[in-house]
Amino acid sequence: MKLYDYWRSSASYRLRIALNLKNIPYEHICVHLVKGGGQQHSADYKAKNPQGFVPALELEDGTILTQSMAILEYLDETHPTPALLPSDALGRAEVRSLAQVIASDIHPVNNLRILKYLAGELGVADEQKMTWYRHWITKGFEALEARLGNTGFCYGDSPTLADICLIPQVYNAHRFNVDMTPFPKISAINENCLKIEAFDKAVPENQPDAE
Amino acid sequence: MKLYDYWRSSASYRLRIALNLKNIPYEHICVHLVKGGGQQHSADYKAKNPQGFVPALELEDGTILTQSMAILEYLDETHPTPALLPSDALGRAEVRSLAQVIASDIHPVNNLRILKYLAGELGVADEQKMTWYRHWITKGFEALEARLGNTGFCYGDSPTLADICLIPQVYNAHRFNVDMTPFPKISAINENCLKIEAFDKAVPENQPDAE
Repeated sequence: MKLYDYWRSSASYRLRIALNLKNIPYEHICVHLVKGGGQQHSADYKAKNPQGFVPALELEDGTILTQSMAILEYLDETHPTPALLPSDALGRAEVRSLAQVIASDIHPVNNLRILKYLAGELGVADEQKMTWYRHWITKGFEALEARLGNTGFCYGDSPTLADICLIPQVYNAHRFNVDMTPFPKISAINENCLKIEAFDKAVPENQPDAE
Repeated sequence: MKLYDYWRSSASYRLRIALNLKNIPYEHICVHLVKGGGQQHSADYKAKNPQGFVPALELEDGTILTQSMAILEYLDETHPTPALLPSDALGRAEVRSLAQVIASDIHPVNNLRILKYLAGELGVADEQKMTWYRHWITKGFEALEARLGNTGFCYGDSPTLADICLIPQVYNAHRFNVDMTPFPKISAINENCLKIEAFDKAVPENQPDAE
């Protein structure tokens, strides 16, 4: 498999964790989101993913999958061990719900294209843009913190889709100085997950294209 | 089941379609998103869904599910007929990816709380706010239109998660005067789906709380 990847993309980071957890070897292909105005906008890459987003996953036969949440479900269905979802429907609903708090309600609102629109079309100052960024992470983390336990993971005693979404978002929170004091459970899960090799290997700074 | 619902919430609209398609009876409970500053912020409702979003689905035993995409998967797992996902993993990945283009990349960015932040904290004028709204729908629809066929549905020949996400988003596009001329395939799917009783019954104007 080929992963169209960028070290600081948190949706790519999710897939790196999942591929590592499932021991699926993959070729890393860097799509640089900043250089030259962004390689994701190139005709070459848009032929692979018309939306011009990373990540995309190319299967052995050349099929290209897009949208990280859809790809995570695909990987879990086709490589079931270790499972990224609980074995019961209610558990799966809870894990997917926790994951979507991040994947729907934090990540897309803080995406690069949104920040560019704020600064460009709307003339929002850097300071206000960072306040925006921190605001939506804080709102989402408040919702999550209230729902988490103390098992070291978001749900149960092994990594699920929810942790796979959470850890990259905590990376962003640290990078942009979100106050994590109100989120001891999230912080404990982050610390616990990063001790696992599959998570550690997926950290942005450990990628070949890290700068 | 009880659906905590608001007629114009497009995430609620998704669940109404799915419940109707699967012939699951449900009690509609209106959570008015505008009146009195928004009933979704009340302590009563936040005890049910700490995130203060609609929809939420209360099961017979009182368990409350949140996040529409997680609930749709739950309904499909527990009430498998008719299926809202294809029977093969690649098909499921494609349908989930199409659905996420809307559920991740359009809907959250145009959500009420975001529009309020733009107008309030950032002092964005009404006209610019509407341009923002239309911009993200148009971007997402461009990505979708390029991937759709002519079967009357987003994928295959019956409604899937992708149609369930698309039709409420087309409703929003019409409501806020998005130019649909570049999207003939999306428009054809919308027209086709709305002929189906389960979709028609879920239309905002057909809800008991419609104003």
